[in-house]
Amino acid sequence: MKSASERWSRVFITSVSPRVLEGDWPIKRTVGEPVHVVAGIIVDGHDQLCAGLYVTRLGGATEEVKMTPMHNDEYTGTFIADSLGLYTYHVRAWINRYGSWHEQYERRFEAKMPASELKIELLDGAALLKEYAVNAPQEQRKKLLAFAERYVNGDIEAPLDEESLQLALSNDPQKGAVQSNPLTVEVDRKLAAFAAWYEFFPRSTSQVQGIHGTFDDAALRLERIRDLGFDIVYLPPIHPIGTTFRKGKDNHPKAKSNEPGSPWAIGSPYGGHTSVHKDLGGLPAFDRFMKTADANGLEVALDIAFQCSPDHPWIKQHPEWFKKRADGSIRSAENPPKKYQDVYPLDFECADWRELWEALKNVFEFWIQRGVLIFRVDNPHTKPMAFWTWCLSRLRVKHPEVIFLAEAFTRPKSMYTLAKLGFNNSYTYFTWRNTKEEITDYLTELTSTNIAEYFRPSFWPNTPDILHEYLTSGGRAAHIIRYILAATLSPIYGIYGPPYEHVIANQHPDREEYADNEKYEIRNWNWNDPESLQGLFQTVNQIRKENIAFQEFRNLKFLKIENPLMLAYSKHSDSNSIVCIVSLDPFQEQKGEIEIPLEALNLPQNSPFQMLDLLKGERYIWQGRFHMIHLNPHSMPARIFQVMPRVRTEADFDYFV
Amino acid sequence: MKSASERWSRVFITSVSPRVLEGDWPIKRTVGEPVHVVAGIIVDGHDQLCAGLYVTRLGGATEEVKMTPMHNDEYTGTFIADSLGLYTYHVRAWINRYGSWHEQYERRFEAKMPASELKIELLDGAALLKEYAVNAPQEQRKKLLAFAERYVNGDIEAPLDEESLQLALSNDPQKGAVQSNPLTVEVDRKLAAFAAWYEFFPRSTSQVQGIHGTFDDAALRLERIRDLGFDIVYLPPIHPIGTTFRKGKDNHPKAKSNEPGSPWAIGSPYGGHTSVHKDLGGLPAFDRFMKTADANGLEVALDIAFQCSPDHPWIKQHPEWFKKRADGSIRSAENPPKKYQDVYPLDFECADWRELWEALKNVFEFWIQRGVLIFRVDNPHTKPMAFWTWCLSRLRVKHPEVIFLAEAFTRPKSMYTLAKLGFNNSYTYFTWRNTKEEITDYLTELTSTNIAEYFRPSFWPNTPDILHEYLTSGGRAAHIIRYILAATLSPIYGIYGPPYEHVIANQHPDREEYADNEKYEIRNWNWNDPESLQGLFQTVNQIRKENIAFQEFRNLKFLKIENPLMLAYSKHSDSNSIVCIVSLDPFQEQKGEIEIPLEALNLPQNSPFQMLDLLKGERYIWQGRFHMIHLNPHSMPARIFQVMPRVRTEADFDYFV
Repeated sequence: MKSASERWSRVFITSVSPRVLEGDWPIKRTVGEPVHVVAGIIVDGHDQLCAGLYVTRLGGATEEVKMTPMHNDEYTGTFIADSLGLYTYHVRAWINRYGSWHEQYERRFEAKMPASELKIELLDGAALLKEYAVNAPQEQRKKLLAFAERYVNGDIEAPLDEESLQLALSNDPQKGAVQSNPLTVEVDRKLAAFAAWYEFFPRSTSQVQGIHGTFDDAALRLERIRDLGFDIVYLPPIHPIGTTFRKGKDNHPKAKSNEPGSPWAIGSPYGGHTSVHKDLGGLPAFDRFMKTADANGLEVALDIAFQCSPDHPWIKQHPEWFKKRADGSIRSAENPPKKYQDVYPLDFECADWRELWEALKNVFEFWIQRGVLIFRVDNPHTKPMAFWTWCLSRLRVKHPEVIFLAEAFTRPKSMYTLAKLGFNNSYTYFTWRNTKEEITDYLTELTSTNIAEYFRPSFWPNTPDILHEYLTSGGRAAHIIRYILAATLSPIYGIYGPPYEHVIANQHPDREEYADNEKYEIRNWNWNDPESLQGLFQTVNQIRKENIAFQEFRNLKFLKIENPLMLAYSKHSDSNSIVCIVSLDPFQEQKGEIEIPLEALNLPQNSPFQMLDLLKGERYIWQGRFHMIHLNPHSMPARIFQVMPRVRTEADFDYFV
Repeated sequence: MKSASERWSRVFITSVSPRVLEGDWPIKRTVGEPVHVVAGIIVDGHDQLCAGLYVTRLGGATEEVKMTPMHNDEYTGTFIADSLGLYTYHVRAWINRYGSWHEQYERRFEAKMPASELKIELLDGAALLKEYAVNAPQEQRKKLLAFAERYVNGDIEAPLDEESLQLALSNDPQKGAVQSNPLTVEVDRKLAAFAAWYEFFPRSTSQVQGIHGTFDDAALRLERIRDLGFDIVYLPPIHPIGTTFRKGKDNHPKAKSNEPGSPWAIGSPYGGHTSVHKDLGGLPAFDRFMKTADANGLEVALDIAFQCSPDHPWIKQHPEWFKKRADGSIRSAENPPKKYQDVYPLDFECADWRELWEALKNVFEFWIQRGVLIFRVDNPHTKPMAFWTWCLSRLRVKHPEVIFLAEAFTRPKSMYTLAKLGFNNSYTYFTWRNTKEEITDYLTELTSTNIAEYFRPSFWPNTPDILHEYLTSGGRAAHIIRYILAATLSPIYGIYGPPYEHVIANQHPDREEYADNEKYEIRNWNWNDPESLQGLFQTVNQIRKENIAFQEFRNLKFLKIENPLMLAYSKHSDSNSIVCIVSLDPFQEQKGEIEIPLEALNLPQNSPFQMLDLLKGERYIWQGRFHMIHLNPHSMPARIFQVMPRVRTEADFDYFV
């Protein structure tokens, strides 16, 4: 018969967190960010437990972190994932047999039990030490056996020497140890968790009205975008555009001969997903643009849309990659009875799916080789989840620095699943969450539930596809409000820049998108309008960079403010505390009484503290919980306060007199 | 190369509920209770999905339940587990290829696309029908092929006949189907989810002062207990009691010669865990008692405490089952420096653990054979979780009607784990939750989190081990309050009856338990005191039985009442709505304004409704949300209202005039 401990254990791991609750997916962290692991571990009776956290970088060695017992049978350990890529971690736990014996022995000794009794107990301790000695390093084995001998000889004071405890701890054979299933964490660059994106169409950057801009024109815009504090410039597709069924102004079914077409109708005889539109200057101009971006400390995000215009080279080279109708013609994208004849979807289930999938992965590889490390993936929810799982995991193993943003505006389960399976960033419903209740509910879901472990939201007040009525009717104040909300509620945000900074928000009569849409025509923008919102961008981006509280997402807490048109929230990280108050009314002045949670922000109950308004640079001295705030949409509909925990008053200086 | 669908699927099951979130444990239900399964299922694009729920009783056939699409990519299906024991269930999902084609075809047809176009689409439909026909039953195969032929022949109206859709649905080869991991549900008797327990010591039932009662005396008490509306009588251990180190009055270290000892010091030369104390009349008297209980419709719960007095037969027969000290003596229970010399714990890790475990399981088997189907297990958290997992699962497979109540007053993780691994009922912290905030927080945790799927709380205002100061100082009103809370907050509750009904609540000076504790002495109780709380017991038990809202746990909702010493809650099931209002102040009258959630209780906004106070039998006509309630602890500190949705007013009768 086998000994009991070979078959079962008294130790029981009840839970390990953080983890994704549904499915075996990794949680997400960034390089240098700590992972605080908490395990519930129980044992019958009162024995002491030991627990360790074991962390392995993919293909690397396993590191052990000692876990510390907290209250309520919880044990914690923290590791810092200091390089990119996938880590696994699991918890191992066992009974600290010698420690349990030792603690009980000390209690017996202190209670002055008779020496005859103590000597009997000592023999149990000796037996344990002999067992522990078997596999101990020679030096420690000797010491363990020396202790054991003193116990056998009845030296009742010997265990009081704490060295036996230390020796035993480091040589515990961990009999009956149990371990949890491995969990995983995907470690990204910091930029995957904290970034400001600026979207613009390179073809609209020419200094000459109506002329197709090139990457060299676009490169001239980068310095200013850098100066405004953005981190990433995101470009709609840069590939050759098809001419067959090309769309005209505002999605008109027939383009005029001089109209440039939609960049999402990818592919022409000049090339497809790995080519650059010749009017943009081709690959050489793109390479120069990348260099300028790099010199300015900016990264470039490309739009990858896996669909083809009827003129895409793949149509002829790989007709088998497209769905056919029974008459042999290629099936265009459609939502019967509507047909989108300028775009052919790919058939991910075709007989040659392996080759197709490989080719699509190689599109990413091609741009990664040219220095692009960030991809905004168009409509990933219309391609199989299995494809993305395969494609992203393979790319990330080779290039863990790459960041994928999922442009999936669809139902929640698909959006969350794309994040689970590997997208590092995700578009959200932020654009449609405009009331206090909508914003509070949505942000609470994103920051306070299990979703926060794997879904990193990117907040966009506008995109070329989405212009909300709030911006159209609310004008400049609405643009300020939505910009400040995006940039302060979420560490990752972006704007479709040119129309936003100029507060150009004419809605298309039929659709929730811009009129005179840049998707179908070349626009000319004034890149240096002093009336634009560029000053606000610069200020807010600087505030974000200087206050680490903005660089975390899960630290968001909503505060009470007695006005349904005003939103208040705090963000608190280490020593940095922020309180934001935003009016949601772009038309009228609003006032409301905010309640400051003094304890949570480490503020004094009965003495003053300073609030520094980072937008205006003004300081206020406050005391107590309740403060009336007035916000005027025509000057500044928001306050971003840095909370200063302590005010120096004259009394402070009196001490030195 | 294999076709795509043999390797991966476009369908993705994101979640299935109900399930236990941490660990592969069964959820709990009772016979006849529906299990509402909700699955999140997604697919790229707009294809229709089919989903089925597959339910298998352990060792039985698998039943399929069609799942219905709801909003937000959720699919639901319900099964009723109509027999006891373990069921598994899983979800299977696949693309409804013909249905998707058919829907698109109809849209094309309705949009009056040219017949030439429609005829091309028809060929796709025909191909699908031919594929579906391959494995269809002959009759249906013929019909499917007939449709296919009409399609091939260009009959553009043929698909409008919905029969093709029905035929296809029932013969879908389910290409690319995926299925979820199986989940499990443990199905118990209704009594495991709704029961009133009455605890008493059979030895205190003699009609002669100071004489050891027998099971025949105890049997005389059953009719009254049945009449009071209780379902289960629970008896402390009934076995022979050891004499070595026997405890005297109130746990005195030395018993006098006439003192009976604690029933938990199990075992004497007359027998151990499968014997009945001879002064109780031995097994024959016990069997007669069981018959009387059965005749009264009562079930008997035995207390199983796996520990031995030094006189237990196992000490001699199986010395290897006990922990030894190094001098060879058996180690008694201890918490150094304290020793509990009247009790020896069993060594679940001994070399002969298999035999020991088998013997312990056979203790349950022995009593099950004698008709006992309910066990209150003493201190299960001091025995290995692995033992209980093994023991309970084996017993339940053979005897799925058996119910185990875990008497574990310990930290939450151990209590919840015992429930997960198989205990059907659990003691709780209810006894120590006395304020409004404590009760609200604890009940919210128990009813509204994942815990509610596997942990069935049993609320006890008192036990022989626990007498809370609230009862001691609050007297009769406190006893009424805590009784009504237990019986109306939780479908399962129990009382240690005799001292409770007589409001005898003298606390031991050193411990939170009764003085003159019945654990160590025989008490005499007046079983028919008209001043006792028996009338309250009878009324409340009847209310519970007549109102199905009390027979469910997860339907509890707390209501707003503007007084921190008053608690209000509703319970709503089908057509039965209850509102309870309880004062937590046993000393002074309290009043508070309650807010009735009219919508949740299906009550009219602008017309009156009736509230029937089930405790007093009085009716009130209310209208609107807000109502002032006065509660007097000296008359009745609670109201239990049955909500009547509609009041007949004279106006109703006018119609008939």
